[in-house]
Amino acid sequence: MTEGLTAGGARTLATSLLAATGVPGDEAEETAAAIVLGDLWGVPSHGLMRLPYYLTRLVAGGHDPHAEMRTVQDTGPLVTVDGGGGLGHWQLWRAGRTAAERCRRYGVAAVSVANSGHCGALGIYTLPAVRDGVVALAFSNGPAFMPAWGGDRPVVSTSPVAAGFPLADGHAIVDLALSTVARGKIAMHAREDKELPAGWALDRQGRPTTDPHEGLAGMVAPLGGAKGFALAFLVEALTGGLVGPALSTDVRDMFAADDAAKPQGVSHLVLAIDPARTSPDGDPRRRLDAFAESVRTTGGRVPGAARRDPRDIPDDHPVTISDALRAELADWAERLGVGG
Amino acid sequence: MTEGLTAGGARTLATSLLAATGVPGDEAEETAAAIVLGDLWGVPSHGLMRLPYYLTRLVAGGHDPHAEMRTVQDTGPLVTVDGGGGLGHWQLWRAGRTAAERCRRYGVAAVSVANSGHCGALGIYTLPAVRDGVVALAFSNGPAFMPAWGGDRPVVSTSPVAAGFPLADGHAIVDLALSTVARGKIAMHAREDKELPAGWALDRQGRPTTDPHEGLAGMVAPLGGAKGFALAFLVEALTGGLVGPALSTDVRDMFAADDAAKPQGVSHLVLAIDPARTSPDGDPRRRLDAFAESVRTTGGRVPGAARRDPRDIPDDHPVTISDALRAELADWAERLGVGG
Repeated sequence: MTEGLTAGGARTLATSLLAATGVPGDEAEETAAAIVLGDLWGVPSHGLMRLPYYLTRLVAGGHDPHAEMRTVQDTGPLVTVDGGGGLGHWQLWRAGRTAAERCRRYGVAAVSVANSGHCGALGIYTLPAVRDGVVALAFSNGPAFMPAWGGDRPVVSTSPVAAGFPLADGHAIVDLALSTVARGKIAMHAREDKELPAGWALDRQGRPTTDPHEGLAGMVAPLGGAKGFALAFLVEALTGGLVGPALSTDVRDMFAADDAAKPQGVSHLVLAIDPARTSPDGDPRRRLDAFAESVRTTGGRVPGAARRDPRDIPDDHPVTISDALRAELADWAERLGVGG
Repeated sequence: MTEGLTAGGARTLATSLLAATGVPGDEAEETAAAIVLGDLWGVPSHGLMRLPYYLTRLVAGGHDPHAEMRTVQDTGPLVTVDGGGGLGHWQLWRAGRTAAERCRRYGVAAVSVANSGHCGALGIYTLPAVRDGVVALAFSNGPAFMPAWGGDRPVVSTSPVAAGFPLADGHAIVDLALSTVARGKIAMHAREDKELPAGWALDRQGRPTTDPHEGLAGMVAPLGGAKGFALAFLVEALTGGLVGPALSTDVRDMFAADDAAKPQGVSHLVLAIDPARTSPDGDPRRRLDAFAESVRTTGGRVPGAARRDPRDIPDDHPVTISDALRAELADWAERLGVGG
C-alpha cells in the first residue's frame, strides 16, 4: 500500500487528471471530491480505484467531458435534467444542491438526472440537504446484476438507496445496495473455494446456491429474497423507469472496456423534504435526535454517523491506496501530461 | 370458516359497525373498504380480523370517531395534516388522494398525517395515485418490535414501505414490512416446537437465534440484518421522526387492551411523483411497462400485480373469515345495535 497520499493531495491529483481530459474546473473538482470521499468513508471500491475507468471512458468518448446539465422541466418543486452523458458525481452533487434549495422553498422537492454516469457512493449526495437541515433520499441505477425473485436473468442493478437526516451532532446517512452482498465478496469465496452463506448468490438459472463457483458464474441475490427484489423493483422503477433513458438491462458497465466509448445511460433521482414543515408540532429535529439517541443507548449504531462531512476532514488526512493503483494513476498523469 | 360473506356484504357490515360507534358515513365507508380490501388482497392479518380491535378502541376512546383531518401546513406540493387521533384508513386514503392531486399540479408532492392510527395494508393507499397515472410511495410506523442491529431493545416498528406504479395493464404495488417475517410465523414455529430458519428472530438480548421459544420471547429480526435495520431507520425517521407525534417506542399497540383508551400516535407519509414530467424523453410509462414485462418474461413476478383495484372486484366476490371472527362481529353488531 502507498503511504503519504493525503485527502487534499488525492483531490488535487484527481482534479488535474479529470481536467486534463477536458472536464471544466468546477466539475472536475466536485467529481474529484466525491471520488476521494469514497476512500475517506471506507468504501474504496467506490473511490480512487474507479478513477482510471472514468478517465478511460472520458478519453474514449463514453462520457462527454464537456457535458452540461440541461433543465428540461422546472415546476419549482420538480426539476428534470438531462445530463448529456456526463460524469455522475458532479451532476448528482448539483442535483442534491438544487433539491435542498427547492425543498427549503416548497417543503418537498425532486430532481431527476437522466443520461448520466456512475456516481460512486450514493450517500454523498444527501450532504447538500443535511447541511441545510433538510432530509434527502437518493436513488440510482446501473448495469443489471440481479434477477427478479424466481427469475433467470438479471433485470435490476444492485439498486442503491441512500437517505440523509440532519442531527444536532452530525447526521445519519443510510447508504446501501439491495443485494445481500457485493459481487466481490462472492469472488473472494470462490478464490478460497469456500462455501457461501445462504442468501448471497444465485446460480445461472436464478436458483439459490452456496457453491461459490456457481454463484460467481451466476448472479448476486437480492437482500432477504423476494422482499429485497420488491425493493429493487421500486428503485429501478424510480430511476431507469421514471428518469431513464435506460432500464438497467441497457445500462453499460463502467468496467466493460468494449463499452468505454458508449454512454452509460445511468439515471438518478433525489427527493428532499423539510422537517421544519412536516409535523403539526414542529418537533421533527428533536425527535430525529431522540431516535438516534435511542439507537445508540440500546447498543446499536446510527447508519452512516461515521461518514463525516468532508468539510470536517482536514486536507492532510491520509488516504491509502494500493501501489498498483498509485502506479496506474502515475501512468495516467504521464499520458495526460499532468505534472506531479 | 364461514362461507357466504361477499365483498359488498363485508363492506356494508364493517361500515355499519364503524358508523354505530360514531364514525361519520364517508369515513366509515372508506375505512370499511380498506379493511375488506386487506382480505381481498390475501392479507387477512390486515383485514376484518382487526375490526373488533378498531371498534374496541373507538368505543374506549383510543380513537376519536369524530376526528377530523386538520391541515396545519399547505405549501401546495406539501400538505401537513393532524389526524386528531382518528382511524388510519380513511385518513391515509384521503392523504393518498391529496398527494395524487397535488402531484398532478406540481410534479411532486408530499402529504404527512400526524397523530393517526393503524391503516391496514399500506399498499392500498397508493391506489389513488396509480389510478391517476402517478407514482406514490407510502411509509407508516407502529409499535416498536425490532431492535437496531446489535441493539438489545426494540426501537423501530416492523417498518412498512409501499410504492405504487401505474402500468398499461394495471399496476405494480410494492408492499412489505422490513422484518424478515411477521411475528405470527415465529409463534407458529414455537407452537410446533420447530427450529426457526436463520435470520428470522433475535433473542431478548438482540442476538440471532433459531430457537422458536427464544425468538418468540425476543424480537423480530430486520430483513437481512444490518441493511434491513438501516432501511427501517429510514422509515422511522420519515414517519415517527418527521411527522410524529410519537416515535415507535411511544406508539401504542392496537392489540393491547390496556391501551385501548389511549391515542395510538401513528404517523404516515405519502410521496407522489408524476412520470409524465420526470424524464427528458417523456417515456417513463413505456419504460415502466417494459420493465414489468422483463420481470415476467424472465420468470419473476411483478410485485403486487395480483392486488386488484377494488373497483374491478365485483361486490359478490366471496370473502372468507373464520367462524370465530364471524361470531365476534355478530356480538359487536348486537352490542352496537346494528341490524343484520
